[in-house]
Amino acid sequence: MTAAITYRLIKQDKHTGARLGEITTPHGTFKTPMFMPVGTLASVKTMAPEELKDMGAGIILSNTYHLWLRPGEEIVKEAGGLHKFMNWDRGVLTDSGGFQVFSLADSRNITEEGVTFKNHLNGAKMFLSPEKALQIENDLGADIIMSLDECPPFFESYDYVKKSVARTTRWAARGLEAHAHPDTQGLFGIVQGAGFEDLRTQSAKDLVSLDFPGYSIGGLSVGESKAEMNRVLDFTTPLLPENKPRYLMGVGSPDALIDGVIRGIDMFDCVLPTRIARNGTVMTSQGRLVVKNAKYAKDFTPLDPNCDCYACRNYTRAYIRHLIKADEIFGIHLTSYHNLYFLLHLMQQVQQAIMDDDLLAFRQDFFETYGFNKEKARNF
Amino acid sequence: MTAAITYRLIKQDKHTGARLGEITTPHGTFKTPMFMPVGTLASVKTMAPEELKDMGAGIILSNTYHLWLRPGEEIVKEAGGLHKFMNWDRGVLTDSGGFQVFSLADSRNITEEGVTFKNHLNGAKMFLSPEKALQIENDLGADIIMSLDECPPFFESYDYVKKSVARTTRWAARGLEAHAHPDTQGLFGIVQGAGFEDLRTQSAKDLVSLDFPGYSIGGLSVGESKAEMNRVLDFTTPLLPENKPRYLMGVGSPDALIDGVIRGIDMFDCVLPTRIARNGTVMTSQGRLVVKNAKYAKDFTPLDPNCDCYACRNYTRAYIRHLIKADEIFGIHLTSYHNLYFLLHLMQQVQQAIMDDDLLAFRQDFFETYGFNKEKARNF
Ligand SMILES: [Zn+2]
Ligand SMILES: [Zn+2]
Repeated sequence: MTAAITYRLIKQDKHTGARLGEITTPHGTFKTPMFMPVGTLASVKTMAPEELKDMGAGIILSNTYHLWLRPGEEIVKEAGGLHKFMNWDRGVLTDSGGFQVFSLADSRNITEEGVTFKNHLNGAKMFLSPEKALQIENDLGADIIMSLDECPPFFESYDYVKKSVARTTRWAARGLEAHAHPDTQGLFGIVQGAGFEDLRTQSAKDLVSLDFPGYSIGGLSVGESKAEMNRVLDFTTPLLPENKPRYLMGVGSPDALIDGVIRGIDMFDCVLPTRIARNGTVMTSQGRLVVKNAKYAKDFTPLDPNCDCYACRNYTRAYIRHLIKADEIFGIHLTSYHNLYFLLHLMQQVQQAIMDDDLLAFRQDFFETYGFNKEKARNF
Repeated sequence: MTAAITYRLIKQDKHTGARLGEITTPHGTFKTPMFMPVGTLASVKTMAPEELKDMGAGIILSNTYHLWLRPGEEIVKEAGGLHKFMNWDRGVLTDSGGFQVFSLADSRNITEEGVTFKNHLNGAKMFLSPEKALQIENDLGADIIMSLDECPPFFESYDYVKKSVARTTRWAARGLEAHAHPDTQGLFGIVQGAGFEDLRTQSAKDLVSLDFPGYSIGGLSVGESKAEMNRVLDFTTPLLPENKPRYLMGVGSPDALIDGVIRGIDMFDCVLPTRIARNGTVMTSQGRLVVKNAKYAKDFTPLDPNCDCYACRNYTRAYIRHLIKADEIFGIHLTSYHNLYFLLHLMQQVQQAIMDDDLLAFRQDFFETYGFNKEKARNF
């Protein structure tokens, strides 16, 4: 049996160990570190697939929980899988649904078997188990899929997290067992353990012994500080095998991306770029910019003078501000386009910096220009 | 002084007199009959300018009233005009603002001088006169602009309409006088007169004697029947000069487009294709289709099997239905794209039918297939 997912390490940054690599999926190969745009409901909000390709996206993420509810995995399966359903022929990753069950749904009850809950759309009672998650993900047909995990709050008690992590590992083993298409879909195990080094260590060791084709790090970027997140990464990534990809879930602010790469992360995803775009906020080479603000009403310069994306080549802050103020959809399309381009382009710069053994200097320049070194800097 | 707008008659359909022609503007030449997509607030809802070009749009319409309120004409002027502001280098037409003042605003008071009203956004008192409309339109910088008109209800009394039409003609003369850029912006006069033949005749004669570079027919598609609209066109278009373009305002249902062309109309505009698209309804070669309906949940065929637009080449009814049900913007982008393409493509077919002296047969086939011959057929 050939592996669905393979990772090739191309080069490590001399000073940090940051990895330049390449992941091959049944739907193409992409360079890492890579940021994955999020298409929750089988669409990256406001974006055409061609636009994502143009900006170099090699893989996107879609949410199992949301697709399970709408349109239902049987419709996606009947369409020929997510790729065909949404007209995207590059990589797709689906999460396990666990995070949404724990953050969106009501009346949760977790047992060894799985979790019952009421969904957030119509309150209907549902049940998600490791086997059910795999069945849905097998039907959706993404290239990379996740085993069901529980993502406990970062500051949950040691005892609770210990029990939760052990169960997540047992669920991972059951997922591996239930997985119907290991030759075309690569199943990742998810390392949990909140901020506890021994629990993260146990989680990583147990999962590695199950020999997944890749590993996710979950339970971060859920309210803890950047310093705490980096501390967890510092002791977690060294526990993961060098020849497999490492995916840090739910992280998308530019500083966290760079600091994650420095700690050996290869893949990231986050709704941040499209979510703040819909609110009229963009990430620029000079820092965060709220284009909706009145001061841009007569500003006929691009969102980012140093960006060569479609939005910045063709439209002004004044025009985009007008569109967003007037609730014109094309406005949030332009800010979404720019923000996604910004993060994908940032990852390309990071790849080059690794190639040049220059990542620490790149980080320093970037943090300074963006404003992350300022006191009370916003994290995006 | 060269004329901003010129019309060239290429050929007339032998049986109906329908006109195949060509309009040249400071921003390019386009074939007529032409349907103009509406970009109310300097954006055709959800659409990129490149997409409109790809589908052959030679000119779009934008609304003076809306742009006057947001972002204000002075910002558009400072941007270098509408074309630069919205990144559109083909033709633009702006209406006079009159229709919106009469349909959207409150507390209207019409005098000979102009109309005072409270705007629909914040209730602020405003004043629009023929001179003010021209100043705004001159600042916006569209290729084709309209003189201020009153659009009375179709079934208003004869006496009221008679007074209104006479005033609209006097306003047209004042607009002509106030027009600051006749060499780069072609000002059209608007024929009014509701359903009264003698008033339409008087309006047309008076406006023609003022020698506008083109003529609009207003006050139709405001609630009267198709038969009534066609009756008015039957006696109105013959009063307009052969060497000038004729624009039927606010009409966009496929049957009305064809019947308008048969009566000598060259240009049309309407929000219909984008408005119904946002509601999940599309126009297809086989008639109206509400893709939001449950019966399309597992329909993996395109919106229109005979359409080769971007949406139909790449996406299924099932996918588009899912997106619209889930409030994903990309769904209404695809229906908007298809509907605009459908009408632009319909006009291309009509142009060819005129070339072939075949318009009546084309009409018969189209009406039959689309379902306009059915009893109680919806008009779109
Ligand atoms: Zn940009
Ligand atoms: Zn189509």
